[in-house]
Amino acid sequence: MVDLVILGSIGLDDIETPFGKVKNTLGGSATYAAYAASFFAKAGIISVIGKDFPEEHYSLLSSKGIDMRGVYQEEKTFRWHGFYEFDMNEAKTLKTELNSLANFQPIVPAEYKSARFVFLANTHPSHQLKVFSSIRKPELVMLDTMNLWITSEKLALLEILKKVDIIVMNDGEARMLFQTVSLVKAANEALSLGPKYIVIKKGEHGALLFTDNKHFNAPGYPLEIIKDPTGCGDCFGGALMGYLAKTRDISEKNIRKAIIYGSIIASYNAEDFSLNRLKNLTIDDIEKRYKEFSEIREF
Amino acid sequence: MVDLVILGSIGLDDIETPFGKVKNTLGGSATYAAYAASFFAKAGIISVIGKDFPEEHYSLLSSKGIDMRGVYQEEKTFRWHGFYEFDMNEAKTLKTELNSLANFQPIVPAEYKSARFVFLANTHPSHQLKVFSSIRKPELVMLDTMNLWITSEKLALLEILKKVDIIVMNDGEARMLFQTVSLVKAANEALSLGPKYIVIKKGEHGALLFTDNKHFNAPGYPLEIIKDPTGCGDCFGGALMGYLAKTRDISEKNIRKAIIYGSIIASYNAEDFSLNRLKNLTIDDIEKRYKEFSEIREF
Repeated sequence: MVDLVILGSIGLDDIETPFGKVKNTLGGSATYAAYAASFFAKAGIISVIGKDFPEEHYSLLSSKGIDMRGVYQEEKTFRWHGFYEFDMNEAKTLKTELNSLANFQPIVPAEYKSARFVFLANTHPSHQLKVFSSIRKPELVMLDTMNLWITSEKLALLEILKKVDIIVMNDGEARMLFQTVSLVKAANEALSLGPKYIVIKKGEHGALLFTDNKHFNAPGYPLEIIKDPTGCGDCFGGALMGYLAKTRDISEKNIRKAIIYGSIIASYNAEDFSLNRLKNLTIDDIEKRYKEFSEIREF
Repeated sequence: MVDLVILGSIGLDDIETPFGKVKNTLGGSATYAAYAASFFAKAGIISVIGKDFPEEHYSLLSSKGIDMRGVYQEEKTFRWHGFYEFDMNEAKTLKTELNSLANFQPIVPAEYKSARFVFLANTHPSHQLKVFSSIRKPELVMLDTMNLWITSEKLALLEILKKVDIIVMNDGEARMLFQTVSLVKAANEALSLGPKYIVIKKGEHGALLFTDNKHFNAPGYPLEIIKDPTGCGDCFGGALMGYLAKTRDISEKNIRKAIIYGSIIASYNAEDFSLNRLKNLTIDDIEKRYKEFSEIREF
């Protein structure tokens, strides 16, 4: 039984930041999201990998109880080579090799179809629509996207945006999609499409939740060392949905808590390359930072 | 009796934003700071204006009970001509005419010398040092600065920074002064100079307070319309100090509250050009937004 279905990419990354570089490291939106979700709930991935995908990466995901039955194997694994400059706010892409992702056709295993929670992480909108239509009766569906689909697949993206319960995107993406500098206006536009909630990720500045003329402001956690922000947005979404799947409470109040858990896992993720920090993360670490998140906004 | 002494500029601004333009409008760091402070406490300005300074501007400040005995008149008023592009995060300067500010020699009236609160708003560090030395026994001194002094007067700036209780600056300025991308590291460097607190302003993303390995994260207030962000940082500092001067409580707990009041006045200030929004601002408006600030961070 899978609590949470996650659609997204699994890849191998080469990453350079001012604090070091790594090669052939485990990455991809579904990887980060599922790993983050696994602290809270049973996640199942829908994705594709190549025949070159290292066994150790596969084992790492399985060892966290992540269901891999929705991941098939074909050709070469998707690869991304990127770097960050000093301010670390934006990933610069040096090279993308789609490989097996180029002809990806999502396959939804029978065991996933009764899942109550679905996270359509960043992938092509047509894949998001396909998976959305395959889940029988989801309680809550959240969708993430990126600038690439906003510019190249806007109509398909708008079609699936109308169907989901929560949209999650970066501040820059929200401004781009709704062509306004005001996040309040962008949020109102997003809500007018149909979704009940929009979550706007602002990196180190935290996140905003908008619904029915109300909003919630989640603080960013100021880190002394940010080694690699890759996957933080995916961790945020994965942990958010994992927490909701665990608690089975989709009230606004609980979504606020879920956003804090998302922020916690994302903040830890930035402290080291790939999944290195999350590999050693304990429930105590998570609860310790939850307490800090609570204290830092008290007045 | 003056509760709060404010050193800074008084000027005439020409401003263009995507939402309109104004000419010869009242501006300057001391103007915004004192006007914001006047909602809470009796402020006295130390500054200089020209003989061309419009009577209506002088009356406006006096009408709010702002003490102008520290403001002398000479030559022409300081003028700034700037604009904002679509993202509104950074003022671009088209022209600065220092005029009377070029030879400014701060004069501290006898009635100001026993003030308990001092806000050294953005001016030349040597003026800040002079005023600092003239106040007999201040309970709390806060200092603001800008990139210009960080690059051109770094040694003088560091000298005065060591003496004050609170440093307030933008995130970009903190990163520039302490040559690190990490705000946590910048804050630790600032605290190691001597001050008990550092407040980092992040514009629409709110503000951070750092002290003794603790921090506070004040949310930004998401505005639907931002017409003109000029003076928001000065309003933030002025209201923060005004609230502290009013309550005479300089505990960390109360400084957190003061930061929220600073954020409230700054958020209103951005809603219209010059002091236009603040002119019509009521105590009820302030308390209404305080309640909202409280609700938007609840989880």
